[in-house]
Amino acid sequence: MSEELKEPGGKVRLYVGAALGEGARVVPDDGQAHYLLHVMRAKVGDRVGLFNGRDGEWLARIAEVAKRDCTLECERCTAPQAEVPDLWLVFAPIKKTPADYLTQKATELGVRALQPVLTRRTIVSRVNLDRMRANAVEAAEQSGRLSVPEVRDLQSFDKLLAAWPAVRRILFCDEAGEAPPIADALRAAPAGPWAIFTGPEGGFDPAERAALRALPFVTPVTLGRRILRADTAALSALSVWQAAKGDWR
Amino acid sequence: MSEELKEPGGKVRLYVGAALGEGARVVPDDGQAHYLLHVMRAKVGDRVGLFNGRDGEWLARIAEVAKRDCTLECERCTAPQAEVPDLWLVFAPIKKTPADYLTQKATELGVRALQPVLTRRTIVSRVNLDRMRANAVEAAEQSGRLSVPEVRDLQSFDKLLAAWPAVRRILFCDEAGEAPPIADALRAAPAGPWAIFTGPEGGFDPAERAALRALPFVTPVTLGRRILRADTAALSALSVWQAAKGDWR
Repeated sequence: MSEELKEPGGKVRLYVGAALGEGARVVPDDGQAHYLLHVMRAKVGDRVGLFNGRDGEWLARIAEVAKRDCTLECERCTAPQAEVPDLWLVFAPIKKTPADYLTQKATELGVRALQPVLTRRTIVSRVNLDRMRANAVEAAEQSGRLSVPEVRDLQSFDKLLAAWPAVRRILFCDEAGEAPPIADALRAAPAGPWAIFTGPEGGFDPAERAALRALPFVTPVTLGRRILRADTAALSALSVWQAAKGDWR
Repeated sequence: MSEELKEPGGKVRLYVGAALGEGARVVPDDGQAHYLLHVMRAKVGDRVGLFNGRDGEWLARIAEVAKRDCTLECERCTAPQAEVPDLWLVFAPIKKTPADYLTQKATELGVRALQPVLTRRTIVSRVNLDRMRANAVEAAEQSGRLSVPEVRDLQSFDKLLAAWPAVRRILFCDEAGEAPPIADALRAAPAGPWAIFTGPEGGFDPAERAALRALPFVTPVTLGRRILRADTAALSALSVWQAAKGDWR
Protein backbone atom coordinates (compact mmCIF):
# COMPACT_ATOMS: atom_id res chain seq x y z
CA MET A 1 0.00 0.00 0.00
CA SER A 2 1.37 3.41 -0.85
CA GLU A 3 1.22 5.96 1.92
CA GLU A 4 2.69 9.06 3.49
CA LEU A 5 5.74 7.97 5.47
CA LYS A 6 5.61 8.85 9.15
CA GLU A 7 7.98 8.71 12.08
CA PRO A 8 6.94 8.95 15.74
CA GLY A 9 7.65 12.71 15.66
CA GLY A 10 5.58 13.38 12.51
CA LYS A 11 5.69 12.91 8.78
CA VAL A 12 8.95 12.35 6.96
CA ARG A 13 10.36 15.55 5.44
CA LEU A 14 13.59 15.90 3.50
CA TYR A 15 15.65 19.00 2.85
CA VAL A 16 16.97 18.97 -0.72
CA GLY A 17 18.97 21.32 -2.90
CA ALA A 18 17.02 20.83 -6.13
CA ALA A 19 14.25 23.11 -7.38
CA LEU A 20 10.74 21.95 -6.46
CA GLY A 21 7.64 22.34 -8.62
CA GLU A 22 4.86 20.32 -10.16
CA GLY A 23 6.32 17.20 -11.75
CA ALA A 24 9.90 18.08 -10.72
CA ARG A 25 12.02 14.98 -10.20
CA VAL A 26 14.44 14.96 -7.28
CA VAL A 27 17.20 12.47 -6.51
CA PRO A 28 17.88 12.46 -2.76
CA ASP A 29 21.48 12.22 -1.59
CA ASP A 30 23.03 8.93 -0.46
CA GLY A 31 22.20 9.40 3.21
CA GLN A 32 18.59 10.32 2.48
CA ALA A 33 18.19 7.40 0.06
CA HIS A 34 19.57 5.03 2.68
CA TYR A 35 17.20 6.44 5.26
CA LEU A 36 14.19 6.14 2.95
CA LEU A 37 14.92 2.70 1.54
CA HIS A 38 16.62 0.89 4.40
CA VAL A 39 15.47 2.61 7.57
CA MET A 40 11.92 3.56 6.57
CA ARG A 41 11.64 0.68 4.04
CA ALA A 42 9.93 2.96 1.55
CA LYS A 43 8.46 1.55 -1.66
CA VAL A 44 7.43 3.02 -5.00
CA GLY A 45 4.31 5.09 -4.44
CA ASP A 46 5.13 6.12 -0.86
CA ARG A 47 5.05 9.84 -0.22
CA VAL A 48 7.29 12.22 1.70
CA GLY A 49 7.54 15.97 2.16
CA LEU A 50 10.30 17.96 0.45
CA PHE A 51 11.55 21.51 1.05
CA ASN A 52 14.55 23.45 -0.16
CA GLY A 53 14.28 26.80 1.60
CA ARG A 54 12.89 28.51 -1.53
CA ASP A 55 9.91 26.75 -3.10
CA GLY A 56 7.67 25.87 -0.16
CA GLU A 57 6.87 22.33 0.90
CA TRP A 58 5.92 19.68 -1.65
CA LEU A 59 4.38 16.27 -1.32
CA ALA A 60 6.53 13.96 -3.43
CA ARG A 61 5.96 10.39 -4.54
CA ILE A 62 8.70 7.81 -4.76
CA ALA A 63 8.67 7.24 -8.52
CA GLU A 64 11.62 4.88 -8.95
CA VAL A 65 13.64 2.71 -6.61
CA ALA A 66 17.00 1.06 -7.23
CA LYS A 67 19.19 -0.79 -4.75
CA ARG A 68 20.95 2.29 -3.36
CA ASP A 69 19.01 5.26 -4.70
CA CYS A 70 15.60 6.45 -5.66
CA THR A 71 13.84 9.23 -7.51
CA LEU A 72 11.06 11.37 -6.10
CA GLU A 73 8.47 13.25 -8.08
CA CYS A 74 6.77 16.37 -6.75
CA GLU A 75 2.99 16.10 -6.79
CA ARG A 76 1.61 19.20 -5.13
CA CYS A 77 2.63 22.13 -2.98
CA THR A 78 1.41 21.62 0.60
CA ALA A 79 2.73 24.88 2.10
CA PRO A 80 3.97 28.12 0.61
CA GLN A 81 7.53 29.15 1.41
CA ALA A 82 7.78 30.90 4.79
CA GLU A 83 10.69 32.32 6.73
CA VAL A 84 11.46 32.19 10.43
CA PRO A 85 11.79 35.54 12.24
CA ASP A 86 14.97 37.49 11.47
CA LEU A 87 16.91 36.31 14.53
CA TRP A 88 20.57 35.27 14.70
CA LEU A 89 22.28 33.44 17.51
CA VAL A 90 25.86 34.53 18.15
CA PHE A 91 27.50 32.15 20.61
CA ALA A 92 30.91 31.12 21.90
CA PRO A 93 31.77 27.56 20.80
CA ILE A 94 31.14 24.81 23.34
CA LYS A 95 32.00 21.13 23.57
CA LYS A 96 30.70 18.62 21.03
CA THR A 97 27.62 17.24 22.76
CA PRO A 98 26.26 20.57 24.03
CA ALA A 99 27.04 22.05 20.59
CA ASP A 100 24.97 19.33 18.88
CA TYR A 101 22.16 20.00 21.29
CA LEU A 102 22.35 23.77 20.89
CA THR A 103 22.25 23.55 17.10
CA GLN A 104 19.28 21.20 17.17
CA LYS A 105 17.31 23.27 19.70
CA ALA A 106 18.14 26.64 18.13
CA THR A 107 16.87 25.29 14.79
CA GLU A 108 13.62 24.12 16.38
CA LEU A 109 13.30 27.48 18.11
CA GLY A 110 13.40 29.19 14.71
CA VAL A 111 16.77 30.90 14.47
CA ARG A 112 17.75 32.17 11.02
CA ALA A 113 21.54 32.07 11.41
CA LEU A 114 24.05 30.52 13.80
CA GLN A 115 27.26 32.52 14.22
CA PRO A 116 30.03 31.00 16.36
CA VAL A 117 32.26 33.70 17.83
CA LEU A 118 35.71 33.48 19.36
CA THR A 119 35.77 35.48 22.58
CA ARG A 120 38.73 36.03 24.90
CA ARG A 121 37.50 33.47 27.42
CA THR A 122 36.45 30.88 24.84
CA ILE A 123 38.05 27.55 25.73
CA VAL A 124 36.77 25.50 22.80
CA SER A 125 38.34 27.13 19.76
CA ARG A 126 37.45 24.58 17.08
CA VAL A 127 34.01 24.36 15.58
CA ASN A 128 32.89 21.45 13.43
CA LEU A 129 30.80 23.40 10.94
CA ASP A 130 29.91 20.33 8.85
CA ARG A 131 28.55 18.64 11.94
CA MET A 132 26.61 21.76 12.90
CA ARG A 133 25.14 21.98 9.40
CA ALA A 134 24.10 18.32 9.44
CA ASN A 135 22.44 18.81 12.83
CA ALA A 136 20.67 21.91 11.57
CA VAL A 137 19.31 20.07 8.50
CA GLU A 138 18.03 17.18 10.59
CA ALA A 139 16.36 19.48 13.11
CA ALA A 140 14.80 21.55 10.32
CA GLU A 141 13.37 18.39 8.73
CA GLN A 142 11.84 17.25 12.01
CA SER A 143 10.58 20.60 13.23
CA GLY A 144 8.48 21.40 10.17
CA ARG A 145 10.65 24.38 9.19
CA LEU A 146 10.76 25.35 5.53
CA SER A 147 14.35 26.54 5.75
CA VAL A 148 17.62 25.50 7.35
CA PRO A 149 19.46 28.04 9.49
CA GLU A 150 22.65 29.35 7.97
CA VAL A 151 25.71 28.13 9.87
CA ARG A 152 28.39 30.81 9.59
CA ASP A 153 32.16 30.44 9.83
CA LEU A 154 33.80 31.12 13.18
CA GLN A 155 34.70 34.79 13.60
CA SER A 156 36.56 36.76 16.22
CA PHE A 157 34.50 38.90 18.55
CA ASP A 158 36.32 42.07 17.55
CA LYS A 159 35.94 41.56 13.80
CA LEU A 160 32.31 40.57 14.14
CA LEU A 161 31.46 43.65 16.17
CA ALA A 162 33.50 45.99 13.94
CA ALA A 163 31.46 44.96 10.89
CA TRP A 164 28.12 44.73 12.67
CA PRO A 165 25.15 46.19 10.75
CA ALA A 166 23.64 48.85 13.03
CA VAL A 167 20.12 47.97 11.89
CA ARG A 168 20.30 44.61 13.66
CA ARG A 169 19.76 44.96 17.41
CA ILE A 170 21.79 42.84 19.81
CA LEU A 171 20.25 41.17 22.85
CA PHE A 172 23.29 40.84 25.09
CA CYS A 173 22.89 38.21 27.82
CA ASP A 174 25.13 39.78 30.45
CA GLU A 175 25.92 37.55 33.40
CA ALA A 176 28.24 39.96 35.07
CA GLY A 177 26.77 43.34 35.77
CA GLU A 178 23.44 44.90 36.43
CA ALA A 179 21.08 44.61 33.48
CA PRO A 180 17.31 44.85 33.15
CA PRO A 181 15.22 41.67 33.21
CA ILE A 182 14.87 40.18 29.72
CA ALA A 183 11.07 40.42 29.58
CA ASP A 184 11.03 44.14 30.47
CA ALA A 185 13.88 44.96 28.11
CA LEU A 186 12.26 43.17 25.17
CA ARG A 187 8.88 44.75 25.82
CA ALA A 188 10.46 48.21 25.55
CA ALA A 189 12.68 47.38 22.57
CA PRO A 190 11.81 47.86 18.89
CA ALA A 191 10.88 45.10 16.43
CA GLY A 192 13.06 44.28 13.43
CA PRO A 193 16.19 42.17 12.95
CA TRP A 194 17.84 40.94 16.14
CA ALA A 195 20.77 38.83 17.27
CA ILE A 196 21.20 37.13 20.63
CA PHE A 197 24.76 37.18 22.05
CA THR A 198 25.71 34.54 24.60
CA GLY A 199 29.20 34.11 26.00
CA PRO A 200 31.42 31.19 26.93
CA GLU A 201 31.62 29.59 30.37
CA GLY A 202 32.67 32.45 32.61
CA GLY A 203 31.03 35.01 30.32
CA PHE A 204 32.39 37.79 28.15
CA ASP A 205 35.47 39.51 29.55
CA PRO A 206 35.31 43.12 30.83
CA ALA A 207 36.62 44.63 27.56
CA GLU A 208 34.05 42.70 25.52
CA ARG A 209 31.26 43.68 27.90
CA ALA A 210 32.29 47.33 27.66
CA ALA A 211 32.47 47.15 23.86
CA LEU A 212 28.97 45.69 23.66
CA ARG A 213 27.47 48.11 26.14
CA ALA A 214 28.94 51.11 24.32
CA LEU A 215 26.95 50.37 21.16
CA PRO A 216 23.59 52.13 20.77
CA PHE A 217 21.85 49.09 19.27
CA VAL A 218 22.75 46.74 22.13
CA THR A 219 20.17 45.75 24.77
CA PRO A 220 21.86 44.15 27.80
CA VAL A 221 19.63 41.81 29.79
CA THR A 222 19.80 39.45 32.72
CA LEU A 223 18.47 35.89 32.91
CA GLY A 224 18.34 35.88 36.70
CA ARG A 225 20.97 35.13 39.28
CA ARG A 226 21.46 31.38 38.89
CA ILE A 227 24.46 30.37 36.82
CA LEU A 228 23.25 29.03 33.48
CA ARG A 229 25.42 26.93 31.23
CA ALA A 230 26.23 28.58 27.92
CA ASP A 231 23.76 26.43 25.99
CA THR A 232 20.98 26.92 28.55
CA ALA A 233 21.36 30.70 28.39
CA ALA A 234 21.19 30.64 24.59
CA LEU A 235 18.05 28.49 24.45
CA SER A 236 16.35 30.50 27.18
CA ALA A 237 17.04 33.79 25.44
CA LEU A 238 15.80 32.38 22.11
CA SER A 239 12.59 31.19 23.80
CA VAL A 240 11.87 34.48 25.54
CA TRP A 241 12.63 36.40 22.35
CA GLN A 242 10.27 34.22 20.27
CA ALA A 243 7.54 34.70 22.89
CA ALA A 244 8.02 38.48 23.07
CA LYS A 245 9.11 39.54 19.58
CA GLY A 246 9.01 36.48 17.34
CA ASP A 247 6.41 34.21 15.80
CA TRP A 248 5.07 32.68 19.02
CA ARG A 249 2.82 35.72 19.36
CA MET B 1 48.63 27.49 49.77
CA SER B 2 45.08 27.15 51.02
CA GLU B 3 42.44 28.60 48.78
CA GLU B 4 38.85 28.53 47.61
CA LEU B 5 38.54 25.68 45.11
CA LYS B 6 37.32 26.73 41.67
CA GLU B 7 36.25 25.01 38.50
CA PRO B 8 35.94 26.69 35.08
CA GLY B 9 32.23 27.25 35.74
CA GLY B 10 32.70 28.84 39.18
CA LYS B 11 33.56 27.93 42.74
CA VAL B 12 33.17 24.38 44.02
CA ARG B 13 29.90 23.85 45.89
CA LEU B 14 28.66 20.63 47.44
CA TYR B 15 25.15 19.61 48.38
CA VAL B 16 25.16 17.74 51.69
CA GLY B 17 22.53 16.28 53.99
CA ALA B 18 24.08 17.37 57.29
CA ALA B 19 23.08 20.46 59.26
CA LEU B 20 25.26 23.51 58.59
CA GLY B 21 26.26 26.14 61.16
CA GLU B 22 29.31 27.79 62.64
CA GLY B 23 31.88 25.13 63.46
CA ALA B 24 29.69 22.28 62.17
CA ARG B 25 31.76 19.38 60.86
CA VAL B 26 30.58 17.64 57.71
CA VAL B 27 31.82 14.40 56.20
CA PRO B 28 31.15 14.43 52.44
CA ASP B 29 29.96 11.20 50.81
CA ASP B 30 32.35 8.91 48.93
CA GLY B 31 31.74 10.47 45.53
CA GLN B 32 32.23 13.99 46.85
CA ALA B 33 35.38 12.99 48.75
CA HIS B 34 36.80 11.38 45.60
CA TYR B 35 35.99 14.50 43.62
CA LEU B 36 37.61 16.80 46.20
CA LEU B 37 40.71 14.73 46.89
CA HIS B 38 41.46 13.09 43.56
CA VAL B 39 39.86 15.27 40.90
CA MET B 40 40.35 18.70 42.49
CA ARG B 41 43.43 17.57 44.49
CA ALA B 42 42.23 19.48 47.53
CA LYS B 43 44.43 19.80 50.61
CA VAL B 44 43.83 20.65 54.25
CA GLY B 45 42.92 24.32 54.46
CA ASP B 46 41.26 24.54 51.04
CA ARG B 47 37.75 25.92 51.07
CA VAL B 48 34.52 24.97 49.33
CA GLY B 49 30.89 26.04 49.51
CA LEU B 50 28.29 23.82 51.21
CA PHE B 51 24.49 23.92 51.07
CA ASN B 52 21.78 21.56 52.24
CA GLY B 53 18.55 23.22 51.14
CA ARG B 54 17.82 24.52 54.65
CA ASP B 55 20.68 26.43 56.26
CA GLY B 56 21.93 28.75 53.51
CA GLU B 57 25.37 28.51 51.94
CA TRP B 58 28.48 28.09 54.09
CA LEU B 59 32.14 28.46 53.37
CA ALA B 60 33.81 25.35 54.74
CA ARG B 61 37.45 24.53 55.27
CA ILE B 62 38.92 21.09 54.70
CA ALA B 63 39.92 20.26 58.27
CA GLU B 64 41.14 16.68 57.92
CA VAL B 65 42.16 14.51 54.99
CA ALA B 66 42.58 10.74 54.90
CA LYS B 67 43.22 8.53 51.90
CA ARG B 68 39.58 8.15 50.86
CA ASP B 69 37.67 10.68 52.91
CA CYS B 70 37.87 14.06 54.50
CA THR B 71 36.12 16.30 57.02
CA LEU B 72 34.94 19.81 56.34
CA GLU B 73 34.36 22.48 58.93
CA CYS B 74 31.87 25.31 58.38
CA GLU B 75 33.46 28.75 58.85
CA ARG B 76 30.85 31.33 57.93
CA CYS B 77 27.52 31.70 56.21
CA THR B 78 27.97 33.30 52.78
CA ALA B 79 24.30 33.41 51.73
CA PRO B 80 21.02 33.05 53.60
CA GLN B 81 18.73 30.22 52.55
CA ALA B 82 16.62 31.18 49.53
CA GLU B 83 14.04 29.27 47.53
CA VAL B 84 13.43 29.16 43.80
CA PRO B 85 9.98 30.26 42.59
CA ASP B 86 7.14 27.81 43.28
CA LEU B 87 7.19 26.15 39.85
CA TRP B 88 6.86 22.45 39.05
CA LEU B 89 7.61 20.75 35.77
CA VAL B 90 5.27 17.89 34.90
CA PHE B 91 6.60 16.03 31.88
CA ALA B 92 6.21 12.75 30.03
CA PRO B 93 9.35 10.60 30.38
CA ILE B 94 11.82 10.74 27.49
CA LYS B 95 14.91 8.77 26.50
CA LYS B 96 18.00 8.71 28.70
CA THR B 97 20.14 11.42 27.15
CA PRO B 98 17.37 13.99 26.66
CA ALA B 99 16.16 13.16 30.19
CA ASP B 100 19.61 13.90 31.63
CA TYR B 101 19.68 17.13 29.74
CA LEU B 102 16.16 18.11 30.76
CA THR B 103 16.87 17.48 34.45
CA GLN B 104 20.07 19.49 34.33
CA LYS B 105 18.52 22.42 32.47
CA ALA B 106 15.30 22.49 34.49
CA THR B 107 17.40 22.64 37.66
CA GLU B 108 19.44 25.55 36.30
CA LEU B 109 16.21 27.25 35.25
CA GLY B 110 15.01 27.13 38.84
CA VAL B 111 12.28 24.51 38.98
CA ARG B 112 11.18 23.41 42.45
CA ALA B 113 9.90 19.92 41.60
CA LEU B 114 10.15 17.51 38.68
CA GLN B 115 7.13 15.25 38.23
CA PRO B 116 7.30 12.56 35.53
CA VAL B 117 3.84 11.63 34.29
CA LEU B 118 2.65 8.62 32.33
CA THR B 119 0.38 9.78 29.52
CA ARG B 120 -1.46 7.64 27.00
CA ARG B 121 1.03 8.37 24.24
CA THR B 122 4.12 8.05 26.43
CA ILE B 123 6.55 5.62 24.78
CA VAL B 124 9.26 5.63 27.45
CA SER B 125 7.58 4.17 30.51
CA ARG B 126 10.58 3.67 32.78
CA VAL B 127 12.18 6.55 34.63
CA ASN B 128 15.53 6.26 36.36
CA LEU B 129 14.77 8.39 39.40
CA ASP B 130 18.19 7.86 41.00
CA ARG B 131 19.86 9.10 37.86
CA MET B 132 17.51 12.10 37.70
CA ARG B 133 18.25 12.93 41.34
CA ALA B 134 22.01 12.71 40.79
CA ASN B 135 21.73 15.00 37.75
CA ALA B 136 19.62 17.44 39.75
CA VAL B 137 22.18 17.57 42.59
CA GLU B 138 25.05 18.17 40.19
CA ALA B 139 23.19 20.93 38.35
CA ALA B 140 22.16 22.55 41.64
CA GLU B 141 25.79 22.58 42.80
CA GLN B 142 26.98 24.18 39.58
CA SER B 143 24.15 26.68 39.13
CA GLY B 144 24.53 28.35 42.52
CA ARG B 145 21.13 27.14 43.74
CA LEU B 146 20.63 26.70 47.48
CA SER B 147 18.23 23.80 47.01
CA VAL B 148 17.87 20.71 44.88
CA PRO B 149 14.60 20.20 43.01
CA GLU B 150 12.45 17.40 44.33
CA VAL B 151 12.28 14.49 41.88
CA ARG B 152 8.89 12.83 42.30
CA ASP B 153 7.88 9.27 41.54
CA LEU B 154 6.27 8.53 38.18
CA GLN B 155 2.49 8.98 38.32
CA SER B 156 -0.32 8.35 35.88
CA PHE B 157 -1.85 11.37 34.22
CA ASP B 158 -5.32 10.54 35.53
CA LYS B 159 -4.26 10.09 39.15
CA LEU B 160 -2.12 13.19 39.10
CA LEU B 161 -4.93 15.34 37.77
CA ALA B 162 -7.53 13.84 40.10
CA ALA B 163 -5.49 14.84 43.15
CA TRP B 164 -4.34 18.18 41.77
CA PRO B 165 -4.41 21.07 44.28
CA ALA B 166 -6.62 23.73 42.70
CA VAL B 167 -4.44 26.51 44.09
CA ARG B 168 -1.60 25.57 41.73
CA ARG B 169 -2.20 26.84 38.21
CA ILE B 170 -1.24 24.68 35.23
CA LEU B 171 0.48 26.11 32.17
CA PHE B 172 -0.54 23.57 29.55
CA CYS B 173 1.69 23.55 26.47
CA ASP B 174 -0.86 22.46 23.91
CA GLU B 175 0.58 21.52 20.54
CA ALA B 176 -2.68 20.44 19.03
CA GLY B 177 -5.39 23.02 19.12
CA GLU B 178 -5.78 26.73 19.16
CA ALA B 179 -4.31 28.31 22.26
CA PRO B 180 -3.18 31.85 23.11
CA PRO B 181 0.51 32.75 22.75
CA ILE B 182 2.44 31.98 25.93
CA ALA B 183 3.57 35.56 26.58
CA ASP B 184 0.02 36.97 26.37
CA ALA B 185 -1.45 34.18 28.47
CA LEU B 186 1.13 34.59 31.23
CA ARG B 187 0.77 38.35 31.29
CA ALA B 188 -2.97 37.97 31.97
CA ALA B 189 -2.60 35.11 34.46
CA PRO B 190 -2.28 35.43 38.25
CA ALA B 191 0.90 34.95 40.27
CA GLY B 192 1.30 32.14 42.80
CA PRO B 193 2.21 28.46 42.52
CA TRP B 194 2.38 27.09 38.96
CA ALA B 195 3.16 23.87 37.14
CA ILE B 196 4.16 23.51 33.50
CA PHE B 197 2.71 20.48 31.69
CA THR B 198 4.51 19.18 28.61
CA GLY B 199 3.51 16.05 26.75
CA PRO B 200 5.34 13.18 25.07
CA GLU B 201 6.33 13.08 21.39
CA GLY B 202 3.04 13.43 19.58
CA GLY B 203 1.51 15.40 22.45
CA PHE B 204 -1.29 14.66 24.90
CA ASP B 205 -4.13 12.61 23.46
CA PRO B 206 -7.58 14.14 22.86
CA ALA B 207 -9.03 12.86 26.16
CA GLU B 208 -6.08 14.26 28.13
CA ARG B 209 -6.34 17.58 26.33
CA ALA B 210 -10.04 17.77 27.06
CA ALA B 211 -9.47 16.89 30.74
CA LEU B 212 -6.88 19.63 31.10
CA ARG B 213 -8.89 22.24 29.28
CA ALA B 214 -11.97 21.53 31.41
CA LEU B 215 -10.20 22.58 34.60
CA PRO B 216 -10.63 26.21 35.73
CA PHE B 217 -7.00 26.57 36.86
CA VAL B 218 -5.47 25.47 33.54
CA THR B 219 -3.98 28.01 31.10
CA PRO B 220 -3.46 26.44 27.66
CA VAL B 221 -0.75 28.11 25.58
CA THR B 222 1.02 27.69 22.28
CA LEU B 223 4.77 27.79 21.63
CA GLY B 224 4.36 28.59 17.94
CA ARG B 225 3.83 26.35 14.97
CA ARG B 226 7.18 24.61 14.64
CA ILE B 227 7.32 21.12 16.10
CA LEU B 228 9.40 21.22 19.29
CA ARG B 229 10.86 18.11 20.85
CA ALA B 230 9.46 17.33 24.27
CA ASP B 231 12.56 18.58 26.09
CA THR B 232 12.77 21.77 24.01
CA ALA B 233 9.15 22.61 24.78
CA ALA B 234 9.73 22.10 28.51
CA LEU B 235 12.84 24.28 28.65
CA SER B 236 11.23 26.99 26.54
CA ALA B 237 8.15 27.13 28.73
CA LEU B 238 10.29 27.23 31.89
CA SER B 239 12.31 30.11 30.43
CA VAL B 240 9.30 32.17 29.40
CA TRP B 241 7.64 31.54 32.76
CA GLN B 242 10.75 32.65 34.69
CA ALA B 243 10.94 35.79 32.56
CA ALA B 244 7.24 36.62 32.98
CA LYS B 245 6.30 35.34 36.43
CA GLY B 246 9.45 34.04 38.11
CA ASP B 247 12.67 35.44 39.51
CA TRP B 248 14.15 36.76 36.29
CA ARG B 249 12.08 39.89 36.76
